[in-house]
Amino acid sequence: MLDGIRPARLRWRNRIMLKRYLPILEWGRTYNGAVLTNDLVAASIVTIMLIPQSLAYALLAGLPPVIGLYASILPLVAYAIFGTSRTLAVGPVAVISLMTASAAGAVAAQGTAEYLEAAITLAALSGIMLAVLGLLRAGFLANLLSHPVVSGFITASGLLIATSQLKHILGIRADGDNWPALLGSLGSALDGTNAWTLAIGIPVTLFLFWVRSEAKPALERFGLRPRAADITAKAGPVVAVMLTIIAAIIFKLEERGVALVGEVPQGLPPFAVPSTDLDLIEQLWVPALLISIIGFVESVSVARTLAAKRRQRISPDQELVGLGAANIASAFSGGYPVTGGFARSAVNFDAGAETPAAGAFTAVGIALASLFLTPLLSSLPVATLAATIIVAVLSLVDLKTPGRLWRYSKADFAAHIATIGMTLLAGVEVGVIAGVGVGLLLYLWRASRPHAAIVGRVPETEHFRNIERHAVFTDPHILSIRIDESLTYLNAHWLEEFVMEEVADHPELHHVILMCSAVNAIDASGLESLEAINHRLEDGGIKLHLSEVKGPVMDKLERTHFVEDLGGKVYLSQARAFADALRDNGDSDLQPHDLARGQI
Amino acid sequence: MLDGIRPARLRWRNRIMLKRYLPILEWGRTYNGAVLTNDLVAASIVTIMLIPQSLAYALLAGLPPVIGLYASILPLVAYAIFGTSRTLAVGPVAVISLMTASAAGAVAAQGTAEYLEAAITLAALSGIMLAVLGLLRAGFLANLLSHPVVSGFITASGLLIATSQLKHILGIRADGDNWPALLGSLGSALDGTNAWTLAIGIPVTLFLFWVRSEAKPALERFGLRPRAADITAKAGPVVAVMLTIIAAIIFKLEERGVALVGEVPQGLPPFAVPSTDLDLIEQLWVPALLISIIGFVESVSVARTLAAKRRQRISPDQELVGLGAANIASAFSGGYPVTGGFARSAVNFDAGAETPAAGAFTAVGIALASLFLTPLLSSLPVATLAATIIVAVLSLVDLKTPGRLWRYSKADFAAHIATIGMTLLAGVEVGVIAGVGVGLLLYLWRASRPHAAIVGRVPETEHFRNIERHAVFTDPHILSIRIDESLTYLNAHWLEEFVMEEVADHPELHHVILMCSAVNAIDASGLESLEAINHRLEDGGIKLHLSEVKGPVMDKLERTHFVEDLGGKVYLSQARAFADALRDNGDSDLQPHDLARGQI
Repeated sequence: MLDGIRPARLRWRNRIMLKRYLPILEWGRTYNGAVLTNDLVAASIVTIMLIPQSLAYALLAGLPPVIGLYASILPLVAYAIFGTSRTLAVGPVAVISLMTASAAGAVAAQGTAEYLEAAITLAALSGIMLAVLGLLRAGFLANLLSHPVVSGFITASGLLIATSQLKHILGIRADGDNWPALLGSLGSALDGTNAWTLAIGIPVTLFLFWVRSEAKPALERFGLRPRAADITAKAGPVVAVMLTIIAAIIFKLEERGVALVGEVPQGLPPFAVPSTDLDLIEQLWVPALLISIIGFVESVSVARTLAAKRRQRISPDQELVGLGAANIASAFSGGYPVTGGFARSAVNFDAGAETPAAGAFTAVGIALASLFLTPLLSSLPVATLAATIIVAVLSLVDLKTPGRLWRYSKADFAAHIATIGMTLLAGVEVGVIAGVGVGLLLYLWRASRPHAAIVGRVPETEHFRNIERHAVFTDPHILSIRIDESLTYLNAHWLEEFVMEEVADHPELHHVILMCSAVNAIDASGLESLEAINHRLEDGGIKLHLSEVKGPVMDKLERTHFVEDLGGKVYLSQARAFADALRDNGDSDLQPHDLARGQI
Repeated sequence: MLDGIRPARLRWRNRIMLKRYLPILEWGRTYNGAVLTNDLVAASIVTIMLIPQSLAYALLAGLPPVIGLYASILPLVAYAIFGTSRTLAVGPVAVISLMTASAAGAVAAQGTAEYLEAAITLAALSGIMLAVLGLLRAGFLANLLSHPVVSGFITASGLLIATSQLKHILGIRADGDNWPALLGSLGSALDGTNAWTLAIGIPVTLFLFWVRSEAKPALERFGLRPRAADITAKAGPVVAVMLTIIAAIIFKLEERGVALVGEVPQGLPPFAVPSTDLDLIEQLWVPALLISIIGFVESVSVARTLAAKRRQRISPDQELVGLGAANIASAFSGGYPVTGGFARSAVNFDAGAETPAAGAFTAVGIALASLFLTPLLSSLPVATLAATIIVAVLSLVDLKTPGRLWRYSKADFAAHIATIGMTLLAGVEVGVIAGVGVGLLLYLWRASRPHAAIVGRVPETEHFRNIERHAVFTDPHILSIRIDESLTYLNAHWLEEFVMEEVADHPELHHVILMCSAVNAIDASGLESLEAINHRLEDGGIKLHLSEVKGPVMDKLERTHFVEDLGGKVYLSQARAFADALRDNGDSDLQPHDLARGQI
């Protein structure tokens, strides 16, 4: 097999393969001091932003806050080695945290060792799935999540997450992974609202909303340059964290019933071994698959957007490998599922990160934080973290998309609304599955009833156009049908029925010409149906012709008996087919098609 | 809302709706003596053929033989009222009987009351599902089963069924719903083979094979006319039944260890009420859905084939209602799932049936048989029924299709082989699901990486063709891309990457023209990606144009801001777009594209 490939060529191929799976070999080669400085600056800024965010998302996942820090160390290093985006920042994100809470909550109670074990196992399973899909080059599977489904899912998750955090602002207990359960639970516990918690939660929430929208212009008025103002504004949550820690200590808030983060273990992430309990794996593999797919789609769309801005490229298949490695690293260091997040990646990008090394430096920053800063965090009110989450996720809620989709495409609107509705009513897993299912069903429904037009010749030209839209010439003995879709098993019967119905309506026919300019493929079922049409037309003394068959389609047809068995011929151009059929009729009965009467 | 619709019009609409759901109103109106005679003759012939077949299929389903008769009475009447095929004969069929055995066997042991209850419940669930899908006009769902999947499933089921009946020919016990289990079970019981059973089973099998292939010419040599010979040959199983009953009585076969059918209750079907036990329904709904879909696809393809021969038409949506009614009728009369069978429908057609009334008359025939003939059947050897099944199903095994598919389409071949393999190895349910899954995955994979060609102008014409297949003119400042697929969420990212990659390779570009003659639809995700391409090209100082956009697609685009935001223009013809771009360049740098060097 290798005859003719010289050893040098082989070595070159191996190097290409290695670079494909280890992108670090590509950018690492040209790494230098200037790039290092940029990466270090970006890493410092991202580290400061990530500390409160990681704690908050762990809380959302129902895990001890320190797990959020663990999930922000080794995964970043793994992604730096295997990922293809120069600026993506991986770690805990809101939607994946919510999905983790929902999946782990189904097998164990929050706060137990089993719950933590389930979260770690989710990361391991998800990592393995992503890596395997990457090695199989199955990135195309992410296409199953259409834009309307993803945006619906993100809007609904944002609403669910914000609602789920209200309990921490109110200082009450409430549970549920869908709106009816959450709202019911919140409503019945409302009496127990803690005024001191509310006195922390509401001002922090308002402050963070203000920071998000107003801090940048305010800082610019104070004389900061736009970019500096922007980055400083991103540190708003850190200010809130510090101020509320001080408030908690001064006012002895814990004694007044305000929930604090409590003792956070100091030190580096432990070495953890994910569970190999088959029962647990059987319960978790479906949620792990959903987490993988959602995480991958979110991450790839962020990476794609950022790469486009700098005219760089990412490889979706290799991104699967990179995220897989990040999740496996997370599992083995006691973390939970991670992916590339939008907010942190945007900050990393804006702060000037140039290579994935910035991610590795961020990991060092978070590691230092978990070594030295954790004692300070024990007095942090949980309400502060909840406010951080609420403000972050409400910005994900997109109220303009439904109207836009409704105007453009009812099918896409239906998929969007089904995703939002099912996510709010039945939780994140059901929501994603429903969205993908509805999208696919509508796609298949549309594919099963494609568009076809009866065409006639535009006077004085060789063009053929729809008789319902243009003034064209037709002949009562010739029926020209333009098929506007590939012939696949999804629509094979449709074509048969369409042709036979038209033939039944036109008893004078001698020729049927199928104009295949928009037929991009014909599968085995499509071929069966063409054969059936040919036989049935032959029985009725009508010749079937094809015109404008594309090269790749014709190549395949020639491997079968179809062309030999065809009653008529295959023509390169529809004009030629029509002219031949006219000549064969022996008359010239060409007549203007009467648009008003809708006849041929 | 009803202004302007006169009452007469409304009555007329109601009548149309009523006829749609009750096709009997259509053919019943013109029923007369001549048609009645033809229907009665066909019914008598089908009745004689159906009696052994119904008993055999009930045995295959693991049910008492009489259940096969029950399932051949009321369902035929229900289909006669609601079905749209003039000649389809419904009742127990091989594949559905096997699926019933597999589903009922998962919840109860054969021979128990629970097993029978499960079979009846399957019929009820399947009937309700079919009827609901029919009222929702969801006949298109059957398209999910491509021809390669259905033919693979039928081949594999034929092999499985024939194997499962070997035990009755050998007179041993064996179990399993897939090949490994069946063959293992048969192998370990082989020692117990009963010679007397074998002495019945083998000759009957050989006789039936002979009848199927040789009886018709032999009868013609005896002077029968072809059609009469054909129909007489179809009575072969009845001859085998009669002869083996006589043999069983004369040789006292029961005492020699030959299994006989045993006492068959005499009388009409009882009124049965399907179970409303939610646990049972939860266990059975998935198999019931699969039975519904497989039954529907089998039945519709038979009905379509027969209707085409007489230039009649069937309505797939109304067929769902007809089969739903038949299954509900089966459930309420103690039967099990039924559908339109190929063999019996072909006999009905050949024997001259003209309307569904023939089915109703067949029902009367079977009812008379269950009233008066059942005592005779108690001495019938089970081996005779098994031989009937084996000969019937082996004719379903199609060994030519794999080779044909391999040559035409590797994807269809893969779906075919996956279906055969999974059905044999893991049983009928897994087999169908795997076939549909593989077919869909391959379809989506193909849809996610469609064909696009860079095109140039054919000299002296207004035609544009693929630069890799034709000698054409191109310009270094203009890139014309013909997109050979609709732009949907499945391929939205592909287009973005294809265009940006080509643009990166051609730094001199000023214009990109997307030729949309084969773009039959653009969904919301496709629109997003066009917008993204437009923005990214604008950033690079390149104008994006569209050409040859189809009417329905343009109508939708005009509802958005896309056309306003477009850097370039939308042209009716590619020739015009190319000419404008050339003029805009201010030069005429048109050059023949060098096919050999593969450059633009």
